Amino acid sequence: MRVHIELKKEIDNSYQIDIGELAQIDLRDRKVAIITNPKVGGLWLSKVIPKIESRELYIITIRDGEEFKNIESVNYILENLFLHKFDRKSILIGLGGGVIGDITGWTASIYQRGIDFIQIPTTLLSQVDASVGGKTGINNRFGKNLIGAFHQPKHVYIDTNFLTTLPNREFGAGVAELVKMAVIFDFQFFKWLTQHDISSNSEYLKYAIKRSIELKAHVVSKDEKEAGIRASLNYGHTFGHVIENETNYSTYLHGEAVAIGMVMANRLAIRLGLLEEREAEEIEGLLKRYDLPTRYRISNIENFYSKFFLDKKSMDRKIKFVLPKGIGDFEFRDNIPENVIFSVLKEFQ
Amino acid sequence: MRVHIELKKEIDNSYQIDIGELAQIDLRDRKVAIITNPKVGGLWLSKVIPKIESRELYIITIRDGEEFKNIESVNYILENLFLHKFDRKSILIGLGGGVIGDITGWTASIYQRGIDFIQIPTTLLSQVDASVGGKTGINNRFGKNLIGAFHQPKHVYIDTNFLTTLPNREFGAGVAELVKMAVIFDFQFFKWLTQHDISSNSEYLKYAIKRSIELKAHVVSKDEKEAGIRASLNYGHTFGHVIENETNYSTYLHGEAVAIGMVMANRLAIRLGLLEEREAEEIEGLLKRYDLPTRYRISNIENFYSKFFLDKKSMDRKIKFVLPKGIGDFEFRDNIPENVIFSVLKEFQ
Repeated sequence: MRVHIELKKEIDNSYQIDIGELAQIDLRDRKVAIITNPKVGGLWLSKVIPKIESRELYIITIRDGEEFKNIESVNYILENLFLHKFDRKSILIGLGGGVIGDITGWTASIYQRGIDFIQIPTTLLSQVDASVGGKTGINNRFGKNLIGAFHQPKHVYIDTNFLTTLPNREFGAGVAELVKMAVIFDFQFFKWLTQHDISSNSEYLKYAIKRSIELKAHVVSKDEKEAGIRASLNYGHTFGHVIENETNYSTYLHGEAVAIGMVMANRLAIRLGLLEEREAEEIEGLLKRYDLPTRYRISNIENFYSKFFLDKKSMDRKIKFVLPKGIGDFEFRDNIPENVIFSVLKEFQ
Repeated sequence: MRVHIELKKEIDNSYQIDIGELAQIDLRDRKVAIITNPKVGGLWLSKVIPKIESRELYIITIRDGEEFKNIESVNYILENLFLHKFDRKSILIGLGGGVIGDITGWTASIYQRGIDFIQIPTTLLSQVDASVGGKTGINNRFGKNLIGAFHQPKHVYIDTNFLTTLPNREFGAGVAELVKMAVIFDFQFFKWLTQHDISSNSEYLKYAIKRSIELKAHVVSKDEKEAGIRASLNYGHTFGHVIENETNYSTYLHGEAVAIGMVMANRLAIRLGLLEEREAEEIEGLLKRYDLPTRYRISNIENFYSKFFLDKKSMDRKIKFVLPKGIGDFEFRDNIPENVIFSVLKEFQ
């Protein structure tokens, strides 16, 4: 399976995503560094290294975890690249989840003003989500992804074999993004998801990844740098970010917080007459099938509400909600009366 | 081939060195981390990982080079071990040359007051030299190996296949240590070395490594913590260290400086009637066959002489020389008149 990502800005930016067993990667005349972490390295390097045909191959591991998606990790990689005399023809390969992908992409974007990189995402979330969009970056003490760039990979290789070693919770977190794509863009895909268990059949899984990537690619190709329609991808995220913040990013995986966030957004959509109760139940049922959380107890509504304004996208004190309009379509709403929002939050008290 | 290293202090300290194709390593019930660098990792991890049977395997790369044999690299490894909850049953594997071996060994010696480690040395020098003796440690701004411990590995695996990717100069640097062992301990081995080209035949190479390890093991087992006879291993090093220091550790590899140092020590031995001119020529001839340097131009004799006293072993202002007594035996001399030493140094002006 192959998806071609056509970006309008520059033809150079276009790239391919291959879905299937990892193939030989011909980089014969180039220096290559695989960036990974100790855990993924131990599990998968012996399978991946023989696939890379390169002039010289280097392995660089960085510490595992969102808290190391920072400038120290980037400096550490840069130092290794300089030590081994990487030049502008050299190429980086990110082997890992979203953290590895974001760091590898951003390091590639700044090394000697930009070198190529390849993504080999090893989590479901990074396969469906981070593989499209070209967002790269790191966190700092002020928040997440606050330093970064749009830098497109040269190629993305998606091999669902990597998911055999993925913990169940992380698999579910990836499913949340698939459900999100279906709910806001594609009724048929949503129906298909309710009828096929993607955790038990690798052909179903590959199809679901492919469809989700196509949907995201369609949005991103229209809006590479996130001016308009791309914001639709934030369905579930406006609430989800507040939940992550309130729980110190330690209770829920990102996808789990988004799952709860979608359930909350659905309640708001029902209040505004955009979604039917029955449809919200179908969405929630699908999330539950993959053991995703759908409930969260808000302890202080005022506090919860105030945290909407921490979001980069709400800096003008307007909260911009992405709400499902039935299943398969969506609407932006940035003028919802406070009392309506509060009454929805009260449902979660 | 197997060498058993029996250490007298505690029976626990004894371990085996296997020489031959890397076998399966059964660590099934343990967490394992392979410590390596980006270059060795790229060349060899895909071959080594499948040999390790472990409960969980992690890969940690550190920056390549003597200048990173420092506390930062150790901290970086420690942090990864804590992140992945390594316990006292866990085990480290050092895959690389002397720097990797020294750092891995010392990190293992301090993590939770000491955990096991395995050495898989990938350079000739580390195969013959660092694999025996239990010296571990790091450099700091005051000098080399100033922080460290004696910590014996659980097992050493020596596979000469690793040497196929070793640069020629590094191969030669390893040969210098082999020659050193032969000259001070074993006339038969020296003769054998003059008759067999170990760079062209892997059986010769394995035999030479084995013999050198046996000789070193014999010395080390008698003197694990370097009180007496072990100092004999410093043949060539007293001069060699000064050469390394004068050339900022950048002109010569350690083994190359030791080669020149042996030639210098031989001149001194001739003056003292310990060695014959013909024997010195034989030793020099053997070094030259492996493209080792045997000449060094001393620009300032007073300076050179003063640097003998930088050595840890000459702190009492007595320079302790290890000199060959014929080929296959040695003598310690710490009372050589200054004018004799100066007259030898003048030969190298």
